[in-house]
Amino acid sequence: MKDVIFLTGGARSGKSAFALDCAARYGRKAFLATAEAFDEEMARRIRKHREERGASFVTIEEPLDIDRALLKLPPDIDVVVLDCLTVWLGNLMHRVGREREIGDRIERFLGVLCKPPVNMIVVTNEVGMGIVPENAMARDFRDMAGSLNRKAAAVSTEAWLLCSGLPLRLK
Amino acid sequence: MKDVIFLTGGARSGKSAFALDCAARYGRKAFLATAEAFDEEMARRIRKHREERGASFVTIEEPLDIDRALLKLPPDIDVVVLDCLTVWLGNLMHRVGREREIGDRIERFLGVLCKPPVNMIVVTNEVGMGIVPENAMARDFRDMAGSLNRKAAAVSTEAWLLCSGLPLRLK
Amino acid sequence: MKDVIFLTGGARSGKSAFALDCAARYGRKAFLATAEAFDEEMARRIRKHREERGASFVTIEEPLDIDRALLKLPPDIDVVVLDCLTVWLGNLMHRVGREREIGDRIERFLGVLCKPPVNMIVVTNEVGMGIVPENAMARDFRDMAGSLNRKAAAVSTEAWLLCSGLPLRLK
Repeated sequence: MKDVIFLTGGARSGKSAFALDCAARYGRKAFLATAEAFDEEMARRIRKHREERGASFVTIEEPLDIDRALLKLPPDIDVVVLDCLTVWLGNLMHRVGREREIGDRIERFLGVLCKPPVNMIVVTNEVGMGIVPENAMARDFRDMAGSLNRKAAAVSTEAWLLCSGLPLRLK
Repeated sequence: MKDVIFLTGGARSGKSAFALDCAARYGRKAFLATAEAFDEEMARRIRKHREERGASFVTIEEPLDIDRALLKLPPDIDVVVLDCLTVWLGNLMHRVGREREIGDRIERFLGVLCKPPVNMIVVTNEVGMGIVPENAMARDFRDMAGSLNRKAAAVSTEAWLLCSGLPLRLK
Repeated sequence: MKDVIFLTGGARSGKSAFALDCAARYGRKAFLATAEAFDEEMARRIRKHREERGASFVTIEEPLDIDRALLKLPPDIDVVVLDCLTVWLGNLMHRVGREREIGDRIERFLGVLCKPPVNMIVVTNEVGMGIVPENAMARDFRDMAGSLNRKAAAVSTEAWLLCSGLPLRLK
């Protein structure tokens, strides 16, 4: 039986640092990054994070096909940190667009989460506790992120909300 | 002594589903919906939710006079789910407008909450954990929703924060 | 050993009221307010809050140099309520501007927090649980507030999240 540790929280709430702490309990580690470097600043941040993780992590960058990336991990990996679901959802909305295909991809991902190939630490963002956005696309994103988080949390074995760097146990 | 169960959380955080779970502890049920169908999509969503609740709920739609609706429930009702306070507050701001009358209506509602005619499950939204909105009306709404939630939670007998579908006990 | 009690939460979530409750455990009290009155409405609110605190608090208004204000408190003070960090950060961004100097000031404040001259109750706002703001300055503010909150919470002896007026223990 594999662990699925679900971590949510607001911007800069310490989710990624807590994810690395959780990963330290396991053996050989992979980091599945969904963010893409659109500009030099972003590229610098991605490089910096990779250096912080150090040689103990294999890094895989995959903005869209995360279910496939999870099923094709190197065979000796014990735990994967997936960082993060909301960036992945944003990528799907910008690059796939069609609601039905986004839904299918989310279902495939949740299918992997139900039968995880390795221990998983899934990082996401809480985006639904502000005022309703005026922008219709932002409203759709907020609704879809809320649903995705709920479904992923439901199949996790452990769940935490990070707040000011401090973890609150949800499950 | 009646129960007043207060449920808050972000968008799509599982509040309504948790409210229905809580309602299952009781006998004959009513659902007091504050949302109005402004367009076909909204009408479809309202119909869908009503079907999901099934025949076990009497549904009452009341966008403004919720205190009166609560006092005029059918006599055999054991629990009412009020869904939700922030939509009601939005209705008051758009359709009543005058700050003093909104304040009076909120006081009347809180009066009912202090002496509930039946067991109550009160659903609301957390809207104050994002950046300060640029729009002045959104700022007012956010402040008023925060105050209303605080006062309603203060007189509740039980309170929960939903996060990614998982409940955190507040009280 | 002094106490450092960290309080976060959304708009109108009851943080300031909880801060005053916490302060009641201590002897002679100071209130360090970072908000400035830009208009008559704001001036009225500040006066009202000061009256609510009553004569039991010495009030100090300091929008920028809070580290210096903390080190220059009257000698008989037992506890200071600092209200609040996010308003202070907003003041720094508007009036200091240069990122490096803001960073230096934050480091000086965190230095005081690590060796507090009196017991401290530090109020801040959770601003990172909504949708990513479209405005670049709002995004920067959100990121900086998240980092500041995380660092301040890390050196606190006790931490709470307020939600609908109800406290959740973080630490």
